[in-house]
Amino acid sequence: MDKLYSSTRFKSLCPFLLKTASKTLRNLSSVASPRYPSLNVLTERATQCPVMGPALNLRSKEIVAGYASFAASADVEKIHKDHGVFPPPGASAEMCPHASAARAAARRAEELASAAKGKHAATSDNISSPAGCPFHKDKASIESKPPVIPGPIGFDYEKFYKAELEKKHQDKSYRYFNNINRLATKFPIAHTSNVKDEVEVWCANDYLGMGNNPVVLETMHRALEKYGHGAGGTRNIAGNSAMHLGLEQELAALHRKNAALVFSSCYVANDATLATLGSKLPGCVIFSDKMNHASMIQGMRHSVAKRVIFNHNDLVDLESKLQQYPKETPKIIAFESVYSMCGSIGPIKEICDLAEQYGAITFLDEVHAVGLYGPRGAGVAEHLDYDLHKAAGQSPDPIPGSVMDRIDIITGTLGKAYGAVGGYIAGSEELVDMIRSYAPGFIFTTSLPPATVAGARASVVYQKEYLGDRQLKQINVREVKRRFAELDIPVVPGPSHIVPVLVGDAALAKAASDKLLVEHNIYVQAINYPTVARGEERLRFTVTPRHTLEQQDNLIRAVNQVFTEFNINRTSDWKALGGRASVGVPGQPDTVDPIWTDEQIGLLDGTSPRTLKNGQKSFVDMRAANVARNRFNQLLGPIAGTLETHRVLDGAFWKVKPAGVPITPEGIHIPKPVSVAA
Amino acid sequence: MDKLYSSTRFKSLCPFLLKTASKTLRNLSSVASPRYPSLNVLTERATQCPVMGPALNLRSKEIVAGYASFAASADVEKIHKDHGVFPPPGASAEMCPHASAARAAARRAEELASAAKGKHAATSDNISSPAGCPFHKDKASIESKPPVIPGPIGFDYEKFYKAELEKKHQDKSYRYFNNINRLATKFPIAHTSNVKDEVEVWCANDYLGMGNNPVVLETMHRALEKYGHGAGGTRNIAGNSAMHLGLEQELAALHRKNAALVFSSCYVANDATLATLGSKLPGCVIFSDKMNHASMIQGMRHSVAKRVIFNHNDLVDLESKLQQYPKETPKIIAFESVYSMCGSIGPIKEICDLAEQYGAITFLDEVHAVGLYGPRGAGVAEHLDYDLHKAAGQSPDPIPGSVMDRIDIITGTLGKAYGAVGGYIAGSEELVDMIRSYAPGFIFTTSLPPATVAGARASVVYQKEYLGDRQLKQINVREVKRRFAELDIPVVPGPSHIVPVLVGDAALAKAASDKLLVEHNIYVQAINYPTVARGEERLRFTVTPRHTLEQQDNLIRAVNQVFTEFNINRTSDWKALGGRASVGVPGQPDTVDPIWTDEQIGLLDGTSPRTLKNGQKSFVDMRAANVARNRFNQLLGPIAGTLETHRVLDGAFWKVKPAGVPITPEGIHIPKPVSVAA
Repeated sequence: MDKLYSSTRFKSLCPFLLKTASKTLRNLSSVASPRYPSLNVLTERATQCPVMGPALNLRSKEIVAGYASFAASADVEKIHKDHGVFPPPGASAEMCPHASAARAAARRAEELASAAKGKHAATSDNISSPAGCPFHKDKASIESKPPVIPGPIGFDYEKFYKAELEKKHQDKSYRYFNNINRLATKFPIAHTSNVKDEVEVWCANDYLGMGNNPVVLETMHRALEKYGHGAGGTRNIAGNSAMHLGLEQELAALHRKNAALVFSSCYVANDATLATLGSKLPGCVIFSDKMNHASMIQGMRHSVAKRVIFNHNDLVDLESKLQQYPKETPKIIAFESVYSMCGSIGPIKEICDLAEQYGAITFLDEVHAVGLYGPRGAGVAEHLDYDLHKAAGQSPDPIPGSVMDRIDIITGTLGKAYGAVGGYIAGSEELVDMIRSYAPGFIFTTSLPPATVAGARASVVYQKEYLGDRQLKQINVREVKRRFAELDIPVVPGPSHIVPVLVGDAALAKAASDKLLVEHNIYVQAINYPTVARGEERLRFTVTPRHTLEQQDNLIRAVNQVFTEFNINRTSDWKALGGRASVGVPGQPDTVDPIWTDEQIGLLDGTSPRTLKNGQKSFVDMRAANVARNRFNQLLGPIAGTLETHRVLDGAFWKVKPAGVPITPEGIHIPKPVSVAA
Repeated sequence: MDKLYSSTRFKSLCPFLLKTASKTLRNLSSVASPRYPSLNVLTERATQCPVMGPALNLRSKEIVAGYASFAASADVEKIHKDHGVFPPPGASAEMCPHASAARAAARRAEELASAAKGKHAATSDNISSPAGCPFHKDKASIESKPPVIPGPIGFDYEKFYKAELEKKHQDKSYRYFNNINRLATKFPIAHTSNVKDEVEVWCANDYLGMGNNPVVLETMHRALEKYGHGAGGTRNIAGNSAMHLGLEQELAALHRKNAALVFSSCYVANDATLATLGSKLPGCVIFSDKMNHASMIQGMRHSVAKRVIFNHNDLVDLESKLQQYPKETPKIIAFESVYSMCGSIGPIKEICDLAEQYGAITFLDEVHAVGLYGPRGAGVAEHLDYDLHKAAGQSPDPIPGSVMDRIDIITGTLGKAYGAVGGYIAGSEELVDMIRSYAPGFIFTTSLPPATVAGARASVVYQKEYLGDRQLKQINVREVKRRFAELDIPVVPGPSHIVPVLVGDAALAKAASDKLLVEHNIYVQAINYPTVARGEERLRFTVTPRHTLEQQDNLIRAVNQVFTEFNINRTSDWKALGGRASVGVPGQPDTVDPIWTDEQIGLLDGTSPRTLKNGQKSFVDMRAANVARNRFNQLLGPIAGTLETHRVLDGAFWKVKPAGVPITPEGIHIPKPVSVAA
C-alpha cells in the first residue's frame, strides 16, 4: 500500500517507540500482562514511563470516564503502587494545570495500544496509527498534523470537533474499526491488516455466504464485461437499465407484490419511504416499535409526522395508542420482523389485525429476514404461511389473506443474506410509484451499478430456488445456542438466527471482543451503546451454514474461556441478580422455540443438510444456479463454455452439486427414513 | 427475461391492441403522423377510436394540464374536426359525469403511446407496459391490477397515492425512465429494452468513460475473486476492509486533506454531513447557494439549523447575509463548484475570503468536478491553483494558502467522472472523525462492496496520473458548444463542461428528447421541473473524450433538425424575447471563457489529444494504468501473466499505449512544435 503517511513522525517523538519495531509494538500490545491481566504488555510498560505513567494513573482515577474497565483501573493503580509511582499529592483534574493535557495523552496512549494491536485502522505497517505518542513531543502542540491556524475571531470549529469526539471517548462509545478482509475462497475466514493474519469471522451479515456464491460472482463478471462499472446516472438520467428493472421485478415477485423499488441501501429505503409517506399523508401518525432501527427513526424524524412509540412487540400498548386517534387519520405502523440486536421477532399477523381494525397501513422491515425465512427466502411474513407459499411455487401472484399479502410495505436489504449491497421496498404499484416520484433520496442519486444489481438478483433467484442454505443455517444456529446454554453462557433468548451473548458492560464487551480476536482468531465485534442500551452490551454472533464443526467447537471453547478469564456473568449469575436484557429474568423462559420447525429444516424426514467439517467443500445447488444463470442469458449472452464460468464454478472451494443428485456426506443431504414425530 | 407479467392482460381489453403485434405498436408510436407532425401515428389512430377519441379530445382542451404541447392539442382538435368527431355539446370536466374517467383514460393512452415506443420502462417484449388500454375494459374498474379492497372505514391510502401521482401527470413532472444499457465495449453506445436497438448516449455522468476503463474492470475482477461481493456489514461490524481504508487514503491525498470518509453515495454524504454538522454546532446558521443540489437541501433541512439562502454565485448577497450574524455564531457556507444543470462555477476563492472574514467554514460540493478539473482531477478548487498543484506532484501534503487548502469540507462522488458509485467527504482529521462517529447515515449502513471501492480507487489513481482524458473532454465540449452557437442553438453560457441547451417548455423538451431517441438514436434526457425551473426546461448534453467526430456531427445535425421541426426558440429568438435562463439576456455575453485554458489543454504546445474518429480505438495510458495496478498488488496478488489481465487490456476496444510512447494518430497525442501565443 502507499506510503501516504509514515508512522515515523510519531516515532520520532518518543525514544521507546523510535527504537522498537512496529511488529514488536503490535506483539506487546496483543499480549496480556501476566501480572495485570486486563492490561496488555505495552500499556504495562507505558505505566513505567516517567511521562506516560502519571498520565495513565490520573486517567485511571476518573470514575465516569475510566481508562478501561474498573478492573483495569485497579490494575493500573496496583502497578503504580508496586513501582512506587504516584501522582503528585493532591493532583486532580481540577487542580493540576496539566490535567487536561495528561488526560488527552492518556487517551492517545490507549488508542495507540489499540492501533498497535494490528487489528485497527491501519491497512499495513507503513500506514500511520490513528495517533502517536505526542506527549513526548518537544513542542507544546499535542497534534501530530499541521496545526490549525484559528481565524482572528469567531467560533473554534476544530476545538468543537475534538470536544465532541472526547465525549465519545469518555462514554466508551468511540468506535475503532477493525480491518477485516473477508476472503471469498476461505469463507468465513478473513485476513486483518496483515494478509497473513487470518481470523474466523463470526459477526458479518453475509448470513449465508452468498457474497461468494459462484453464480453471483459469475454473473457479476459477465455483467462487468458487458456493461462496465457505474450506472452513469440517476434512474431518470441514463442510470436505468434492464438490470435494475429485472431486479425490481424479481423482488416484487419474491414478495408477491405488484412492484418494488431499489435504493442505494435499505437505510436510504427506510429513511426515504417513511419520510416521504409521513410528510405526504395529511396529518399522518406513525406508530413505531421502540426497538426500531436507526434508519426508520431517521425517516420518521425527517417526515415531521407525529411519532408514537409503542413498547417492543407489545400489542396491548400498540392498540391503546391506536385507539387514541380517529379512524380516518392516516396511520403507519412501522416495525421489524427480526430485531437484529436481540433476535426477537415481531408479531406480524397480529399487527396486521390491529392495522385493519384501526385503519392503519403496515411498514415491515424484513432486513434481517429476507433470504433467511420462508420457503423462498421472502422473510418472516412468508414464513408464517410456509406451506401456502411453498405450494404456490414461484408464482408472483399475491396469496389473498396471507400475512405477506396483508403487509402494505415490505422493506428489505440486498446487503445481508443476499451478500450484495442496496435496499428496496415492495408494495402496491401506486405506493411504489409515488415513492419513486417523490422521494429525493431515490430521485437525486446515482443508481447502483448494473453488475451490482445483477449479482444481487442472481443471489435472490438462487435463494428463491434453494432451501438448503436456510436450513443449514438454522441447524448451526440451534447447535451453537444449545452449546452456549449448556455452558451457562447467557444467550438472549429468541426464535431467530440471531445469537446475542450478554456481557453487560461496555469495556468488558470490548475487552472480550479484543481477546477473542487476538488470542483465538475469532472476530466478533462488541455491540455497545448506542446500538444497545447501556448495561446490555453484548457479543452478537452470526452463525452461517458454512461455519464448520471445528470452527464451532473453537468458538464455544474460546468464548467459554474468555468468560472465565474476565469473570463475565453467566446466565445463573444474571438470574441471581434478577435478570437483564431477557437473560435470567424470573418467570421468563431461558429459551424460545425457533420459528423454523424441525419439519421445515428437514429433521423429520432426514432431508436436512449436515454441518460441514473442516476440509469439506461447500456446495452449490446446480438446479438453482442454472435458474439464476438463465435469468441473464438474454442480456449477458450464453454462458456455456466460457473460461470464466468454469474457472469460477469449478473452483477448489466449491463442490458443484449436479442437478437432481442428492448431496453427498461432504455436502450434504442424504434422504433417509426417519420416523416422523406424531 | 422472466415472464413475470404479461402484457396480454392489457391487450385483451382492446380489439385493436389485441390484434396488433407489439413491434407494430412500437413502430406506429415512433413514427410521426405525416399530417399532424406533433403526434405519432398510434395517437392519431387512437383519435379515431370511438372510445379513446372523445377522451383524447376532452384532454386536449384542458389548458393547465394539456395532453401534450399546445401544438399537439391543436393537432388533436384538428383531427377531430377533419373526422367530424366532437365532444358532446357542452361537455366539460365539470359537467360531464364521465369526465374524470375520460381524463384518466386519456392519460393512460398517452402513457401507452410512450411505453409502446419501446424506449420506456419495459425490459423486453414480454414485460408489461406501464399501463394498458383500460377504457375498453368490460368492467367499470379502471385499474389493471387486482382491485384494492378498501377497509370498512378509515383513510383511503391507495386513492391518495393515485391523486399524488395524478398531480405529477398534470404538471408534466411525472417521470418515465428510459431503459438504457450502456455497453462497455461500445462506449458511448447503449442498447435499449431491445438488445439490438442501439443508441448514442449523450447525457450520462460517466463523464470520462471510466466505467469501462480496463484498469478499473481488471481491478474489480481481481477484487471480486479475492473478496467476493458484499462487504458483509457496517464499517463498524465486519464491513471495514483494507479496500475501504485504501480508497479513503487515496481521496484524502487527492484533495491534500488529512482524512476522507466514504458513504453509500454523495447524496448520503451531503445529507449526513450537513445534517450532523448543522445539528451539532450550537446555533449554527447555514448559508446556502440558491442553486444547491437536493442532497444539500435535504441535509440542511434534516439539521434543523437555520438556513439562509443567497442568490446564485452572488457574493454581495452572501456578504450582506453573513454580516447579520455575530462572528462567534457557527456558520457554514454550502455551495458547489460546478452547478450541473446550468454549468456555472462557484466563486470558490472569494467565498473562502468571506468565510474567513466572517468566521464561517466552507462546504464545497465538487460532485460534477472531481476527475474533471485540476492537474490531478481533484476538482475546481485544485484547478484554481493549477500550476502549484501540478508542481507538487502526488504529494498528499496540503499546500498552505491554496484554494483547496482553504476549503474546510470537500464532498465528491465516485459515481460520475470516476465511473463507479459512492460518495465521500474530505477534510480535517477531527471533522471527518466527528462525522464518522455521529452521522447515522454513515454508521448504520452496510458499507460499499470491496470490489466497488477497489474499482473506484483504480479510477481515482488513473485520473490522478493521466491528464489526457480531461483535456480531450474539454476539447470536445468546446467544439460542440462552438458548433451549436454557430447554428444559433441556445447553449446556456458557462465556463464548465456542462452543455445545457435551452428549450423552455416541458412538453417540448420531452418531445425533442423523444424524437432524438426514436429518429436519430440519440439519447439525451429532457430536464424538466423540479430539476430546473419551469420555463427553463432543457436538454443537457454530456460530451465525453470518447464521442467521435462522426458522433458529434450526427448530434449537431439531429439537434438542429429537431429544433427546426418543432420550431424551438433559438438564441436569436430568446434575444428578441428579452432572454431566458442566461440565454440571449441583454448586456450578457453569449459565451463565457472556459476554465480550462488553451495552455492547460495542450493547444499551445501541440500536446493536446485529438478527437477520435469512428473506428479508431480508444487508448489507455499504460503508465497511469500501472500506477493504479500497483496500488493493489500487495492485497490482490501479482497481476503479471493472468489471463484476465491480458484479455481485458488487450481487448479489441482498447488500444494500449505503452509507457513513454506518444500516442499515435489513432489515439492521440503527437507533440509538434506550435508557436505559443504571446
